[in-house]
Amino acid sequence: MKVWRVNVNTQASSIEDVPESWNALGGRGLLARILLDEVPPTCEPLGPHNKLIFAPGLLVGHRLSSLDRISIGGKSPLTGGVKEANAGGRTGYHLTSLGIKALIIEDQPQDEAWSVLHLSKDGVRFDDGSAYVGLGVYDTAPQLLERYGEDVAIALIGPGGEMKMLAAGIQNIDKDKVPSRIAARGGLGALMGSKYVKAIVIDNEGGERPPLHDKPAFNQAKKDFTVALVNHPQTTTYTDYGTPAMTSMCNHFGALPTRNFSSGSFEHAEKIGGDYLRELLLKRGGVSDPTHACMAGCSIKCSNVFGDESGEHVITSPIEFETIGLMGSNLGIDSLDVIAEMNQGVNDLGLDSIEIGAAMGVACDAALMEFGDGARALELIEEMRAGTPLGRVLGNGAAITGEVFGVERVPVVKRQALSAYDPRAIKGTGVTYATSPQGADHTSGLTIRAQVKHTKPEGQVDVSRAAQFNMAGYDTLGACIMAGFGFAVAPETISGLLNARYGFDMPQDALQQLGVQTIELEREFNRRAGFTKADDRLPEWMTREHLPPMNAVFDVPEEELDAIFD
Amino acid sequence: MKVWRVNVNTQASSIEDVPESWNALGGRGLLARILLDEVPPTCEPLGPHNKLIFAPGLLVGHRLSSLDRISIGGKSPLTGGVKEANAGGRTGYHLTSLGIKALIIEDQPQDEAWSVLHLSKDGVRFDDGSAYVGLGVYDTAPQLLERYGEDVAIALIGPGGEMKMLAAGIQNIDKDKVPSRIAARGGLGALMGSKYVKAIVIDNEGGERPPLHDKPAFNQAKKDFTVALVNHPQTTTYTDYGTPAMTSMCNHFGALPTRNFSSGSFEHAEKIGGDYLRELLLKRGGVSDPTHACMAGCSIKCSNVFGDESGEHVITSPIEFETIGLMGSNLGIDSLDVIAEMNQGVNDLGLDSIEIGAAMGVACDAALMEFGDGARALELIEEMRAGTPLGRVLGNGAAITGEVFGVERVPVVKRQALSAYDPRAIKGTGVTYATSPQGADHTSGLTIRAQVKHTKPEGQVDVSRAAQFNMAGYDTLGACIMAGFGFAVAPETISGLLNARYGFDMPQDALQQLGVQTIELEREFNRRAGFTKADDRLPEWMTREHLPPMNAVFDVPEEELDAIFD
Repeated sequence: MKVWRVNVNTQASSIEDVPESWNALGGRGLLARILLDEVPPTCEPLGPHNKLIFAPGLLVGHRLSSLDRISIGGKSPLTGGVKEANAGGRTGYHLTSLGIKALIIEDQPQDEAWSVLHLSKDGVRFDDGSAYVGLGVYDTAPQLLERYGEDVAIALIGPGGEMKMLAAGIQNIDKDKVPSRIAARGGLGALMGSKYVKAIVIDNEGGERPPLHDKPAFNQAKKDFTVALVNHPQTTTYTDYGTPAMTSMCNHFGALPTRNFSSGSFEHAEKIGGDYLRELLLKRGGVSDPTHACMAGCSIKCSNVFGDESGEHVITSPIEFETIGLMGSNLGIDSLDVIAEMNQGVNDLGLDSIEIGAAMGVACDAALMEFGDGARALELIEEMRAGTPLGRVLGNGAAITGEVFGVERVPVVKRQALSAYDPRAIKGTGVTYATSPQGADHTSGLTIRAQVKHTKPEGQVDVSRAAQFNMAGYDTLGACIMAGFGFAVAPETISGLLNARYGFDMPQDALQQLGVQTIELEREFNRRAGFTKADDRLPEWMTREHLPPMNAVFDVPEEELDAIFD
Repeated sequence: MKVWRVNVNTQASSIEDVPESWNALGGRGLLARILLDEVPPTCEPLGPHNKLIFAPGLLVGHRLSSLDRISIGGKSPLTGGVKEANAGGRTGYHLTSLGIKALIIEDQPQDEAWSVLHLSKDGVRFDDGSAYVGLGVYDTAPQLLERYGEDVAIALIGPGGEMKMLAAGIQNIDKDKVPSRIAARGGLGALMGSKYVKAIVIDNEGGERPPLHDKPAFNQAKKDFTVALVNHPQTTTYTDYGTPAMTSMCNHFGALPTRNFSSGSFEHAEKIGGDYLRELLLKRGGVSDPTHACMAGCSIKCSNVFGDESGEHVITSPIEFETIGLMGSNLGIDSLDVIAEMNQGVNDLGLDSIEIGAAMGVACDAALMEFGDGARALELIEEMRAGTPLGRVLGNGAAITGEVFGVERVPVVKRQALSAYDPRAIKGTGVTYATSPQGADHTSGLTIRAQVKHTKPEGQVDVSRAAQFNMAGYDTLGACIMAGFGFAVAPETISGLLNARYGFDMPQDALQQLGVQTIELEREFNRRAGFTKADDRLPEWMTREHLPPMNAVFDVPEEELDAIFD
């Protein structure tokens, strides 16, 4: 494996040996290591000293179920701290099969000319990207596929990233060539926009699967993992209902964000839940299957595509639970059709539906929209597309929207919006939101399945810490959170796979070790960037405004938050 | 002297003894002490735990020339750190003559009903303020004067503060009852707006001058100070030309912000300078005097009122140098008439002309206005008045404007806009911008008169440190920067006045002592609020973009910045 380095100003590129200290890392952990080694922590995130980095996880490239994810990172334009966002789709696999351990994109083009980066076994080529400027990802991707062939992987930004909106992510095409797998959080799309790279096309023709140190051992571990995963009861749930199954669970806990986090219970939760969605899709018949896999080889298929009432028109942006929570209940919207249309708009712009949903919730409190008014919500998305002042405010996320319109009830930590679990009712996840180096993010350590009383402050720091180490470990492997169902039952397969792949001598608790190391690196970057314990806090109003129906405030003691990683 | 405490939620008020540790402080130093003692440093600035505090300086109340200033403070809604902004006018004098050492305004009204706070020897009264909501300060003040009498002092906010814009300051009426003396910086108007207090009316009838420990000694020191001040050559310059005299000096140094800080030299500097202004005003004859004093007893009269071409219509917002720099050259605008009109609009809204000028400069780089287009600039001010999305963005200052529109060339430190001295050409002031606990602010330590080569990095930390201690000392006394001309010649009068007033035993270097103490308190508050050395930096682009005509970047070493207060 090699490090590919590209300078978008000089258009020079190089293929370099992997530094010794990077070898045993991948994905999220490697990103943190590279950021510490190469990016000045106090640099301007959208300036020339920041770098955009793609790093497949350690176990990417073998079509292991739920294990071909790509980690993308840099200094976050949104939080100002360390950032990793990962996605499924083809990108991780294709990069790995070209032997790329990390792709590092540096500097800024002085002429501000847009490019498409083309990566293949012949190296890096800069193609003119100006033809795609202003186009949404659903228009851009087919044109790129026509130009470069159907088998390439593509990572690209929409108009949101071009406008350097802080809610912009980076979209990746999935196994069906649809650009809906977004590395959503933290404004990495704006970072890619600041490099004037509209898309990265990865042609892996002539590439190959990564070499295996001990093939039989790898295949055995692969088999053990797959069996464990497929037989886990949660796998079946997700296969049938996808992530929308969380809607009723979260509502049941009184933790479903409703009307800008003013309630944890939505009276129409059923209409936007997993059961309803499944029945609707089966009834309409526009799609062959009510769930959908984003990566080849995935046994779970937690995602979906959405067929409209006609039974013909298919909306290709998946309606994930987070989108349902933030764009549905959080806005008082009870129609999956409206949510699907909003989501398609936001995805086309290459924006994070969590951040935008949260920003719109704040906008409702600022009287720019009424809760439940889906038509207005769609108008606001068009404002973003047009880049109007209002659209740009919303496209920069919830924190800026709150500042601009003088709203106090803004659900953010480190300026990044909370996901669809209200931290007053699921307090362990609140601890994660507060203390994760990534800013508020459920994928950094969700605790909803932990054996703990979610509304009590006791024990939450412990469950959050465990979840955060696990997730940092998974993100370093390139594993989807769903892979955890398998790894939980067969934890020995993690070191088994790593050792067989690389010849490492990793212990049984490899996951823990990778997770601890990753979070330590990330916290060090944030410290150097100026973060302190004052940043590891939920919004003050959440410590004071009681959340119905549990009537809870967030009351995990600050001293416990401060000591979580001691 | 007493502490007056007002809770705007319960409408309770109390008159309390001054705590021992507050006694030897006033103004800016006292604000820092109170913030440390009473305000949680990590609190939400516009939430109920922040406090709005008025504290006259230690030497306020005696009609000493340039020494009756009011310091206003709280946790800054703009920077998130400690904040003191001071102003001339009547407020300091009136509060002192009611025996008020500090007025502390707490909590938030749950009903969000607007009030006018009335302070008199009978205590605090809440009057209905709803009639004035939405009115500019030039409409509000006359109505309040009619209601409460011509001799009251008034501190009030405009629509900017009502909308909680982060560029909103607090206006104070001057000796001529004009509400143009703004405690401008750091968003204190938004803080007052978050308390739903439209105005504070201070009726000092029955009040008296503060008692003197040693009257003869006080009068002697007063006389010595006044003589020193009046005889200083700079006093004459300011008496004739006011602060606009700085325009040509700053342009001469290549430090006049021009077209969003892209140059330090403006080709039409002469047309917006002090000579031109003086001649214009004398020629037009609409005003009796080309300069104007904001406080009774002032010997300098550095301010002005502006008569228009007709020789009849007078614009009562003073055109200070900072306004000329930020709203003139910084926007490529070369007409004092346009600048005067813009300034009147911004002042009426109760907004900081520095912050708004800087935000408009950023807006020019975002193609929302062309440099030099005064008509468009006036339109943008009307957007602010109307509270449109664009107006709200601009009204929240340069940092947010840059974030929303994806502009990198944003002139801020700690999210507060730089004043009208480009730090690449006056590097000592750059050190002040970077390291002042207040955020970028020339009044925290201007070095343009220091004996140092301004374009070299050497020695700048020393001149900035000295200037910062001096200014923190002056702000604690209640002294205008102009008072420094007198104190520089007769430094012994500072301890002389303090000891004669209070019976203190202050040493000759009382100013230094007060300054050091104040900055230490402020830095401690900021530390607790989460500030680190990463916040003590100029914008990165200023370290890399050369400023014509001096062709300088900001290159004072970061290690020197970090060590400035060691």
